[in-house]
Amino acid sequence: MRYDRVYNFSAGPAMMPESVLEEIAAEVLNYHGSGMSVMEMSHRSPVFQEILSQAEADLRTLMHIPDNYKVLFVQGGGTVQFAMVPMNLMKNGVACYVETGAWSKKAIAEAKRYGEVKIVASSADKNFSYLPDCSALDIPGNADYVYICENETINGTAYHTLPDTKGKVLVADQSSLFLSRPCDVSKYGLIWAGVQKNVGPAGMAIVIIREDLIREDLPEFVPTYLRYKTHADADSLYNTPNCWSIYCCGKVFQYLLANGGLEAMAQRNEEKAAVLYDFLDRSKFFTAAVLKEDRSLMNVPFVSPSKEQDAEVAASAKAAGFDNLKGHKSVGGLRASIYNAMPKEGVEALVDFLKKYEAEHT
Amino acid sequence: MRYDRVYNFSAGPAMMPESVLEEIAAEVLNYHGSGMSVMEMSHRSPVFQEILSQAEADLRTLMHIPDNYKVLFVQGGGTVQFAMVPMNLMKNGVACYVETGAWSKKAIAEAKRYGEVKIVASSADKNFSYLPDCSALDIPGNADYVYICENETINGTAYHTLPDTKGKVLVADQSSLFLSRPCDVSKYGLIWAGVQKNVGPAGMAIVIIREDLIREDLPEFVPTYLRYKTHADADSLYNTPNCWSIYCCGKVFQYLLANGGLEAMAQRNEEKAAVLYDFLDRSKFFTAAVLKEDRSLMNVPFVSPSKEQDAEVAASAKAAGFDNLKGHKSVGGLRASIYNAMPKEGVEALVDFLKKYEAEHT
Ligand SMILES: Cc1ncc(COP(=O)(O)O)c(C=O)c1O
Ligand SMILES: Cc1ncc(COP(=O)(O)O)c(C=O)c1O
Ligand SMILES: [Mg+2]
Ligand SMILES: [Mg+2]
Ligand SMILES: [Mg+2]
Ligand SMILES: [Mg+2]
Repeated sequence: MRYDRVYNFSAGPAMMPESVLEEIAAEVLNYHGSGMSVMEMSHRSPVFQEILSQAEADLRTLMHIPDNYKVLFVQGGGTVQFAMVPMNLMKNGVACYVETGAWSKKAIAEAKRYGEVKIVASSADKNFSYLPDCSALDIPGNADYVYICENETINGTAYHTLPDTKGKVLVADQSSLFLSRPCDVSKYGLIWAGVQKNVGPAGMAIVIIREDLIREDLPEFVPTYLRYKTHADADSLYNTPNCWSIYCCGKVFQYLLANGGLEAMAQRNEEKAAVLYDFLDRSKFFTAAVLKEDRSLMNVPFVSPSKEQDAEVAASAKAAGFDNLKGHKSVGGLRASIYNAMPKEGVEALVDFLKKYEAEHT
Repeated sequence: MRYDRVYNFSAGPAMMPESVLEEIAAEVLNYHGSGMSVMEMSHRSPVFQEILSQAEADLRTLMHIPDNYKVLFVQGGGTVQFAMVPMNLMKNGVACYVETGAWSKKAIAEAKRYGEVKIVASSADKNFSYLPDCSALDIPGNADYVYICENETINGTAYHTLPDTKGKVLVADQSSLFLSRPCDVSKYGLIWAGVQKNVGPAGMAIVIIREDLIREDLPEFVPTYLRYKTHADADSLYNTPNCWSIYCCGKVFQYLLANGGLEAMAQRNEEKAAVLYDFLDRSKFFTAAVLKEDRSLMNVPFVSPSKEQDAEVAASAKAAGFDNLKGHKSVGGLRASIYNAMPKEGVEALVDFLKKYEAEHT
C-alpha cells in the first residue's frame, strides 16, 4: 500500500480511508485558512460550529435520520453508553436484554445497577456462535426497552432481521456495524455506536435518540454528563466535546456520501466478506466460528486446527503485512475485522496469504 | 507566523506548539513505520501501549509524581470529573468547596447530588475578581476533602499559595494551569485537568490520584466508567481510551522536557504575563479584571471602557490576526489566554496592537 501502510485487521480502533487521512494530514497546522489546527479551535468558535453542524447534517443525510431524532456526540465510548442507556431509559425499572456475546454481557452487567434486567434470549449455550430466535420474545408489559448488540465484535454475529419487540422501544449498540449498511432509524428508539470501529478516532460515541425518550425526571444521582438531555439541549456543546473525533468522523461521512452512501457500502461489504467466508468454508484448515446465517460482515472470527497454530498464523501474517489478526484475548483464535475502510484488495491479499499458509502447513 | 497561523488566544481548546503539530502532521498516515495512523491502532497493540506508557512516564518525570500516585487518562473532560470526584471521594458524605468563579460553581452544583457541600470560602461578593483568604478555613472534622479550582479560566484568578486544609485531602481542578509551573504533587490527594487548555486535543482529563483514595466500596449507582478504580486497575485501558489525545499530549510532554521542564515554563509564563499585565495596568483605556496578587498567568480577563468597545476591540483584533479575544459569554469583556504554547512574541504583538488601538480611540 502507499505510504508503506499495512492491511490492518484491527477490531477497533481500525482502518480509516487513506484519502481521509491525507486530507487530515494536510490540515493539521492550518484548517481551511483559519490559522489554526482543529485541535486548537475553541469549540464555541464559528469555524468549529460549522464542522460540527456539517458532520451532523451529513450523518443525517447518510442514514436518513428522521427529524424527531436527536444526534449526540458523547465522550466515554461504549462503556459510558452501557450506563447511560439504563440510567436514562429505565423509567419503570425493567429492561429486556438479548445476550449474544461479550458486549451484550457487559451491557447487561451495567444495567443491573439501575433496575431489573430480563434476559429474553441468549446464545450462551453454544458459545455465542449464533443469534437466538428473537421472533417471539417474552417481553413484560412494563419493560422500558429491549436491548441488542447488533454486531458482536468479538463473537462475530450480526442481526440480519431485528427482534420483534412487541411494540417496546428497541435500543441497539451498533458500534461495529455503524454505517456499514442502510439502517431504518425509525425502527429504533435509540441507536448508539462507538466511532472507533467503522468511523474515526476513539473517544466518542454517537447517539441517535428519539426525542420523546429524552427525560428530565431522572434520579438525582445521574451525573449531568450522563443525561441525554444535557447533550440534546446543548446540541452536543454542553461542555468541550471531542472536537478532533467530530472533525475526523465528519470527513468520513463526506467520504461515504461521495462514494455512494450506505447502499454502496453494503454492497462492497457483502462482496468483501464473501471473499473471506467463501475461502474459510472451503478451507480444510481454517473454520469460521459463526453459523452462516448469523455472520457479521465486519468481524470474521475463525480458527485453525489448534491454538498454537492460531498464534503462528497471526505472527506470520503480521510479518507479511497483515496486522492485528489475533482473536480477542477472551476467546482466542483469529479474527479479521473488515470495516468499510478495508479495501477489497486487502481481503483478497489476506485470502491469498491464508491459502498459501494452508498449502505449506497441511 | 509560519503556515499563515494566527495568534490564538482561545481559553481552550487552545494553541499547541508548532513543532509538535509538525511532527503530528508527518505521522498521520504512518506512525513510526507501524504502517498505520495512531487513529487506526488497536489500543491493545504493543505500538500503542508504548505510546501510552511513554506519555505516562514523561508526565511523571515532568511533575515528579510520587510512586504512590496513579496517573489516569479519562474521557469526558472536566464535566465528568465534577461528578467523579464526589462520587468516589465522599465517604462521609461531606465535602468543602472554595467558591471562586464559574468552574468551582459547576463543581459545587454537581457535588450536591452526592452529599453535603460546605462552601468554606467565597469571592462571590466581588464578582470573583480575587481569591478569598484560605489560611484559616472552618473545615468540619468529618469532611472528606477540600476542593479548589486552582485557576479559574473565565474569571482569571490563580492560587499562588494553597489553602490550609487542616490535614484534609486537597482536590484541585488544575485544567487551566496544568504544567504551566512546578507543582508539588504530594500536597494534593487528587489533581485533575482537562487537557484541552495547556496540553492537547479535547476529549480527555488527566487524573493524578493518591492510591489510598481509590475506593472499592462505592454506591451501586456509580457507573463502572466513573470509578477511579476501574481506570487505575487497568492502567487507563479498561476500555478504548482517547488514543489520539494521549498521543498528542505525550508529544507535548516531550516538548516540555526538551525545553527545560516546568521551571522553564514558569519563567517564560511569568515574563509573558508581565508584558500583558504591565500594559493593562499602565493603560488608561484597558483595565485588568483581577486583583494583582491573585492573577492567573494563563487567562487574562480585561475590559475597555464599555461593552460596545469590548466588542469592537475583539473584532478588530481578529482582523489583525489575534483570534478569540472575546471574554466568556457569562462575563463579557475581553480575555487573552496565554498558555505554554503562546509565544512571547504573540503577547508582545498583541500589546502593540492594543496600544495602537488605544492611541487611535482616545
Ligand atoms: C459492540 C461493542 N460495544 C461496546 C464496546 C466498548 O466500547 P468502548 O471500548 O468504547 O467502551 C465495543 C468495543 O470496544 C464493542 O465492540
Ligand atoms: C477550570 C475548568 N474546569 C472545568 C472545565 C470544564 O471542562 P469540560 O469542558 O472538559 O467539561 C473548564 C473548561 O472548559 C475549565 O476551564
Ligand atoms: Mg437464528
Ligand atoms: Mg473451513
Ligand atoms: Mg487574597
Ligand atoms: Mg489600566
